[in-house]
Amino acid sequence: MRNLTLLTDFYELTMMYGYFRQGKTEEVATFDLFFRPFEESNFCIAAGLEQAIEYIENLHFSNDDVDYLRATKAFNEDFLTYLANFKFTGSIRAVPEGTVVFPYEPLLIVTAPICQAQLVEAALLNIVNHQTLIATKSRRVCYAAEPASVLEFGLRRAQGPDAAIYGARAAVVGGCTSTSNVLCAEMFGMPPKGTHAHSWVMSFPDELTAFKAYADIYPDNCLLLVDTYDTLNSGVPNAIKTFDYLKAKGYKPVGIRLDSGDLAYLSKQARKMMDDAGHSDCKIFASSDIDEYVLESLKQQGARIDIYGVGTRLITSNNTPSLGGVYKLANINRAGVDYPKMKISDNPIKMTNPGQKTVYRLFGRDTDKAIADVICLKGETIDDSKDLTITHPTERWKTKVVTNFYAKELYVDAIVDGKRVLPKRNVYELQADCKGSLDGFWDEYKRLSHPHEYKVDLSDRLYQLKENLISAERKTVK
Amino acid sequence: MRNLTLLTDFYELTMMYGYFRQGKTEEVATFDLFFRPFEESNFCIAAGLEQAIEYIENLHFSNDDVDYLRATKAFNEDFLTYLANFKFTGSIRAVPEGTVVFPYEPLLIVTAPICQAQLVEAALLNIVNHQTLIATKSRRVCYAAEPASVLEFGLRRAQGPDAAIYGARAAVVGGCTSTSNVLCAEMFGMPPKGTHAHSWVMSFPDELTAFKAYADIYPDNCLLLVDTYDTLNSGVPNAIKTFDYLKAKGYKPVGIRLDSGDLAYLSKQARKMMDDAGHSDCKIFASSDIDEYVLESLKQQGARIDIYGVGTRLITSNNTPSLGGVYKLANINRAGVDYPKMKISDNPIKMTNPGQKTVYRLFGRDTDKAIADVICLKGETIDDSKDLTITHPTERWKTKVVTNFYAKELYVDAIVDGKRVLPKRNVYELQADCKGSLDGFWDEYKRLSHPHEYKVDLSDRLYQLKENLISAERKTVK
Repeated sequence: MRNLTLLTDFYELTMMYGYFRQGKTEEVATFDLFFRPFEESNFCIAAGLEQAIEYIENLHFSNDDVDYLRATKAFNEDFLTYLANFKFTGSIRAVPEGTVVFPYEPLLIVTAPICQAQLVEAALLNIVNHQTLIATKSRRVCYAAEPASVLEFGLRRAQGPDAAIYGARAAVVGGCTSTSNVLCAEMFGMPPKGTHAHSWVMSFPDELTAFKAYADIYPDNCLLLVDTYDTLNSGVPNAIKTFDYLKAKGYKPVGIRLDSGDLAYLSKQARKMMDDAGHSDCKIFASSDIDEYVLESLKQQGARIDIYGVGTRLITSNNTPSLGGVYKLANINRAGVDYPKMKISDNPIKMTNPGQKTVYRLFGRDTDKAIADVICLKGETIDDSKDLTITHPTERWKTKVVTNFYAKELYVDAIVDGKRVLPKRNVYELQADCKGSLDGFWDEYKRLSHPHEYKVDLSDRLYQLKENLISAERKTVK
Repeated sequence: MRNLTLLTDFYELTMMYGYFRQGKTEEVATFDLFFRPFEESNFCIAAGLEQAIEYIENLHFSNDDVDYLRATKAFNEDFLTYLANFKFTGSIRAVPEGTVVFPYEPLLIVTAPICQAQLVEAALLNIVNHQTLIATKSRRVCYAAEPASVLEFGLRRAQGPDAAIYGARAAVVGGCTSTSNVLCAEMFGMPPKGTHAHSWVMSFPDELTAFKAYADIYPDNCLLLVDTYDTLNSGVPNAIKTFDYLKAKGYKPVGIRLDSGDLAYLSKQARKMMDDAGHSDCKIFASSDIDEYVLESLKQQGARIDIYGVGTRLITSNNTPSLGGVYKLANINRAGVDYPKMKISDNPIKMTNPGQKTVYRLFGRDTDKAIADVICLKGETIDDSKDLTITHPTERWKTKVVTNFYAKELYVDAIVDGKRVLPKRNVYELQADCKGSLDGFWDEYKRLSHPHEYKVDLSDRLYQLKENLISAERKTVK
């Protein structure tokens, strides 16, 4: 496993050194990792927890790391010795992968001695921001494609090897059926998907010879790319000849792939040509700069496409290629006493929620559909045997009485006292978890355009704590 | 070193198997890796060659890889044995990292037995697309920031660990002075950069105590983040008090960092406050959702910022998060005879240039500035002792006579017969190469908005070959 311990911003190390020099290594900090309202989607699909756990489990400064840090001349020998013996001994509570999560709800809650909690900020953000971004995009793409299914094809345009590997993993969590990326498929136990490229066709004297050669090698799994020269005048007719040839030998051909041109028109024409030739069981695959908006348009135009290969725009989250997740101090425990903390800002959107927290999701007993989320202080419970009044996070005059509901807490323990406690789940289990979490929401929240706003409220106790901290701070600032 | 051999699309393996079964393993293919016109920039900065070479050198199928491929049931045992013994024995010519490169000019030219050349397509595209994208973005950001310098700060928002590590590397090639990413700095021999976060300030009872504690630990390198509570009413005054305290002890404080709010206004006010307090040598750092457009605006507004930390929008190439590099078959050599190949398409932009090629860049003898590039067939030479008529790649009536020039070929040998021949260069050497390549262009080509169009022409011989192949193909298609 790669040693990613130095995958951190230098200021995390200078701050650790500061805490170390200040004798604060026994102070226990709680940080929340959360995102603010995200322009691409009203909610996200949590992803990346598995890699976050692996990173934490593998944290250690190698001798080379310590030597490198010594050479920066920013640290003394006591601190370098401390690093050489460094281990993560804290705890992480997390929203499980595949869960629908809203702005301001912590995806991870890290509680650890302050130096440890500080070190892991940048890598945890990197891992969770990336995979949550791609799982969220994948959910949108798969939603728009239904009932067609979606394969992840983005390796060549991903932002480096990890973006391809973990991006494809996150895409499967969010709903893609598999990936073309063989290394990702190997690492996460999936069937890799693919057929042939234009270069296969171009390496033969003509297209039909290339198709028949492919059919001879994969008679049971013959999917032909038909746009190398001319889709309707050459590609589809040659594919039909090849399918006739395969059928005559007793095989069942799979179908064709369109990779350029007007996919709506071409798919309808190709469907008709294949149906007329007696190949109505052959499928049509399509790829070519597809995203959720193209998919909605293709659906409206009645395109006859069964399976989409989605590359660039999914693997990079093309429109919004970053999730602005942040990692903010919420509490410091000194000698057993909690001091809730928050960032005060002129910009209300940058204000954070103080204290150690949890989140409950309220579901209707009759519908099993989510009604609202409530961000609370840790230890607060929700009595779902009676009606509950919930209140808007800032507009406190906006209240709603929730009746006939049950409450579910969103978090699981991922790491306790430095040890992993969360069982590993494979990507298809996580995909099923994601489907389950999405099934808990009405379609009005899930549609891509102008979704209904979902309520995420603050409990009275959390709201009061926040107000008190703001007033106290405003008094001390000149 | 990580084994990335399976970082490939599954169809590369099915095609390799096809060529293997067809007895084509002795055919030698030449593929060009190039990009088409890129909406973000009129030219790119080549990057990623070093990692591409490392990938090629390390290519091998482990026993686990072979077992995994066996389990897909897509291949026979002969082929799996061939994979177990697989080595790359081909050659790669490349545009060196840091070079200005234009659409349709191959960044890499891979010549190898067809199975080998096919296998490496996806990973080479992944590596080169990513780093070229980020180096190009970095060039734009650094150009807009001049004379201020730029630090790369994007780890937490990058698309996974590699995007952070290799993205920061590419950012330095493109002009950034360093990175906050410690692992990247360690891997590529750079000084990591950073100060402290809001959480440092929040972990103390008040801001001044936090600043003084930081100053005590880093008296020689004291850079203070001033926007935790209120930049001008609290942060800057407390920083000035801390700088007074340091100066009294004989130290030279570094400066302040602004991380939110109106950077133009705040920097001018903070500059005045620090100057009035006798700290005119203290620098102002700024960060907060910066890209080349924000930088141009800040410059117009007279912002007083010395050093920028640029994160999300650089490390993700926010506006255009992928470079659409492709890898296209250009030639097949069978038993010593070359068969030039090209992709014919209804869409002229998707037509490729056939044959084994090279590119010359023509410079004025008096100016040392680039005049035009000419894409030629390999072996064509340019006689720069006399005038040269160059011709537009498609509009052949557009010609230009170039006089008093010299010609430089763009390529170097990176790998010959499977062995690396290109010496390793460190990132600051590559940064200097990049500066050198950029210095060879007039500013009219480098400005960010509506740059002058640079001529990239096709030689007559290459144009004629292309015409011949198109006519031949059009005759055979029904």
